[in-house]
Amino acid sequence: MKIALAQLDYHIGNFEGNLEKMLGYVEQARAQGADLVCFGELATCGYPPRDFLEFDDFIRRSYTSIEALKAASSGIGIVVGSPTRNPVVEGKDLYNSAYFLYDGEVLGVQHKTLLPTYDIFDEYRYFEPATEFKTVEFKGKRIALSVCEDIWNVGNENPLYTICPLDEMMAEKPDFILNISASPFSYDHAAVRIHTVRANVERYKIPLFYTNHIGAQTDIIFDGGSIVMSPDGQVFDEMPYFEECLRVYDLEEVTRGGRTAEQPKEKVQLMHDALVVGIRDYFRKLGFKKAILGLSGGIDSAVTAVLAAKALGQDNVRVLLLPSQFSSDHSINDARQLAVNLGMQYDIIPIQPVFAAFEQALQAQFAGTAFNVTEENIQARTRGTLLMAMSNKFGNILLNTTNKSEMAVGYGTLYGDMCGGISVLGDVYKMEVYALAEYLNKDGEVIPQNTITKPPSAELRPDQKDTDSLPPYEILDQVLYQYIENRKGPRKLVEMGFDEALVARVLRMVNMNEFKREQAAPVLRVSRKGFGMGRRVPIVGKYLS
Amino acid sequence: MKIALAQLDYHIGNFEGNLEKMLGYVEQARAQGADLVCFGELATCGYPPRDFLEFDDFIRRSYTSIEALKAASSGIGIVVGSPTRNPVVEGKDLYNSAYFLYDGEVLGVQHKTLLPTYDIFDEYRYFEPATEFKTVEFKGKRIALSVCEDIWNVGNENPLYTICPLDEMMAEKPDFILNISASPFSYDHAAVRIHTVRANVERYKIPLFYTNHIGAQTDIIFDGGSIVMSPDGQVFDEMPYFEECLRVYDLEEVTRGGRTAEQPKEKVQLMHDALVVGIRDYFRKLGFKKAILGLSGGIDSAVTAVLAAKALGQDNVRVLLLPSQFSSDHSINDARQLAVNLGMQYDIIPIQPVFAAFEQALQAQFAGTAFNVTEENIQARTRGTLLMAMSNKFGNILLNTTNKSEMAVGYGTLYGDMCGGISVLGDVYKMEVYALAEYLNKDGEVIPQNTITKPPSAELRPDQKDTDSLPPYEILDQVLYQYIENRKGPRKLVEMGFDEALVARVLRMVNMNEFKREQAAPVLRVSRKGFGMGRRVPIVGKYLS
Repeated sequence: MKIALAQLDYHIGNFEGNLEKMLGYVEQARAQGADLVCFGELATCGYPPRDFLEFDDFIRRSYTSIEALKAASSGIGIVVGSPTRNPVVEGKDLYNSAYFLYDGEVLGVQHKTLLPTYDIFDEYRYFEPATEFKTVEFKGKRIALSVCEDIWNVGNENPLYTICPLDEMMAEKPDFILNISASPFSYDHAAVRIHTVRANVERYKIPLFYTNHIGAQTDIIFDGGSIVMSPDGQVFDEMPYFEECLRVYDLEEVTRGGRTAEQPKEKVQLMHDALVVGIRDYFRKLGFKKAILGLSGGIDSAVTAVLAAKALGQDNVRVLLLPSQFSSDHSINDARQLAVNLGMQYDIIPIQPVFAAFEQALQAQFAGTAFNVTEENIQARTRGTLLMAMSNKFGNILLNTTNKSEMAVGYGTLYGDMCGGISVLGDVYKMEVYALAEYLNKDGEVIPQNTITKPPSAELRPDQKDTDSLPPYEILDQVLYQYIENRKGPRKLVEMGFDEALVARVLRMVNMNEFKREQAAPVLRVSRKGFGMGRRVPIVGKYLS
Repeated sequence: MKIALAQLDYHIGNFEGNLEKMLGYVEQARAQGADLVCFGELATCGYPPRDFLEFDDFIRRSYTSIEALKAASSGIGIVVGSPTRNPVVEGKDLYNSAYFLYDGEVLGVQHKTLLPTYDIFDEYRYFEPATEFKTVEFKGKRIALSVCEDIWNVGNENPLYTICPLDEMMAEKPDFILNISASPFSYDHAAVRIHTVRANVERYKIPLFYTNHIGAQTDIIFDGGSIVMSPDGQVFDEMPYFEECLRVYDLEEVTRGGRTAEQPKEKVQLMHDALVVGIRDYFRKLGFKKAILGLSGGIDSAVTAVLAAKALGQDNVRVLLLPSQFSSDHSINDARQLAVNLGMQYDIIPIQPVFAAFEQALQAQFAGTAFNVTEENIQARTRGTLLMAMSNKFGNILLNTTNKSEMAVGYGTLYGDMCGGISVLGDVYKMEVYALAEYLNKDGEVIPQNTITKPPSAELRPDQKDTDSLPPYEILDQVLYQYIENRKGPRKLVEMGFDEALVARVLRMVNMNEFKREQAAPVLRVSRKGFGMGRRVPIVGKYLS
């Protein structure tokens, strides 16, 4: 039997687009002699569809796509994910299902049992878990069909669920497992994914074919990396990251095994590739082509600009240099040099006159008060307004350049440097931004060396340095990582050796600034725990704040 | 047996504050001869604690509060909600539990079974459902203890769950039901709540004591309205809305019944009271006292200002009048008159000079382009920056004045009039804003009549009217309500008699503007479906857009 895995970039709610794409791949698979072609979880409607699932019309359109795929299944099996209405009145109204279509018929439907409801996932919000587990018989083989999380409750130290759906299916002695997934990228996820697939193969001793989505849906990025694993526990094949791809596998060869084909999983490169895809798909799926951003001469905007150029093409990225009276000459020079290196259109618009107009407007109210964070914020908001004006006038989406460290501690101005349609670096700690910069410069200096080596500064008052307000990033980033990614509380952090006063100060900054993150741009998620839907923290909470 | 219900305003993560408050009410209940006092769901830690629950330290502190309440339970039973660690490795790590404490012991713990995971609720994100159901014996009575949603699966047309925990408990023949809840306000919720309590009483034929939270946690408002229902299905008592309250009931009297004590449930008054509480608690729980907002002369900012004065006191609300060259004289006069009526400090800061400075700064880039939405947005962002400058300088939180109709269709400027710490009217449709204005004027004109009667306008270009860009609010609001609150899709809306082109246009505006709402201030939730956590819609989705 020849099994084709298709890892595709779906688009939420774009039923026509998703269907047309799948129909094209059905024909490709057929042309390559496949008996069966497998698409992703909820591939008809895209993932995650979120509350669109509450609209009957949305479900109806998903069924329409299933009908069209059924009609295209003559002589070739099609496995595809789509929502199913729950006919039982009790329980949630939908199932998250894998359909097995063949010769114009539905050969089998397996609903998802384990409904991820953590981090960015909300599946129990919509779906009833399966209570029936049946294999599908196809061309003399028994197939254990499963959706994403249903293979993730095996081999964990702290399993999230009390049931294991594949255990239930083994009574029917399937010949192999098919899993259709929508499993989002994080820079350490590919290894975890292989570990999970292997835990299943070691438990059930049969081949496992796993197919994933690629592409970004706003903040959530899918990396593909679909896996074929032989019963010997070796990765028979791992499909490319971040690329649409169809490959056909011979079941006998896979069952025989003896082949290992894993890809390198280098963190900085994966982050880089994910961010480029994240930018590209945000624009493409919204129907935009052109970006704008402010270049400060600092490293965050520099890295963002290079990534944007890679994602959209340098001609589609316009930059503004917006110096104030506090900007140093080297900042302007560094920013200009970067724009020149990238061949981007740049404008220099000094913000001092607008800042002066604001000061003048507020003269009566501010009389007798000292320059403080207010005036710093006015500068940042003047820049935000200028960038948004260019965005509005010329149809460029503004890219936000805030990094994760700043976003965590609230070191940024709401409606100022926090403006933007999408946050490119909001899930990248400052020290990781440096690593990205080095990576981007690996084949020659694109980002001026001075941008990388100088001490970080917001340049909103004379001689300002980030370290005036924040611990050094080398330490700050470690505390933040342990608190945010690893959920270590204040006691644990002190036990780990961090200074108690510093821990209290950092955690307080993080928790107090939830109100800023609430209004931040969506953040391209590249870690296990990004800001946004995956991290839900009360604003008026009084915890460690 | 004398049963005290305490409906209190808890504060998320404020363990010391919540505990101290409950200990005070234990003493009050004791002084009034109560055998038993009941607090709310997750009362130790506040509701909804969201991802704070993922921190071991947070759970440890909840246990510390339970220990303190246990120590205070000598001679009086205490029922209180708190998270419990799940000792079983499989499944989620926590339970959402009701503790029954008495004489320094834990007399019983009943975990929650039905975990609301819809709208603003995410309980299955954190909690494992109960699988054991036991009544508690206390002073010769058997009590069916339950947490919030566990009484909500009775009497529904479309039940969300496949199990009914109270059915399970009836084998032990309880004498009455105790339910501790955290059930958020919407203007039609009090009636639904009584309906639900009654469905249980009619099914089980025993009294039901139901206690709720009051107060706001950012966007989510609790209205109290705790219920005592007799076996005859009559509301024996309904505690006040939006007020902390302790009342003691005699079980025999309640069982006897024959009394009805329901409160009026007038929509506009409830919305009004909820919004006042929402503003008040946002400030109080964040430790702020003073607000600022811009008065345009229009109805939204007028209503917001009056509500703010009621919540915070007129001396704590400062207003800015920020006229541009497009502002009409009557707008400035109406705004000034309102400030005078309210006795508020007001400043007039014309924005024209700042706007001119922006135009000047962008002269080269904008050469040859026509005045369009860009210039409108610059005005709105100039106002936003001025208001935020005052906020930063003087420590006033900016109140956002955007209404639900505008927010739905994206009729507002991101980083401009969408600025603010909390959105007061973001869950109030324009026609409801008018109703609120009439309500606020019921004892004399506070809001100038001209503000109410003139056609709505953003005044960002000459002779602009909202109806230049939008359908009349009378129709728009109906379409939005059916789409947002009732999840009617395009076909259903047309079947209901709305014009097909208008429906397509409105739904497209709603779906296209998800990117703006993503960065909006949290919205005080007063309807069944507010913007924010309760409504999760993809940004790059291509559905009806």
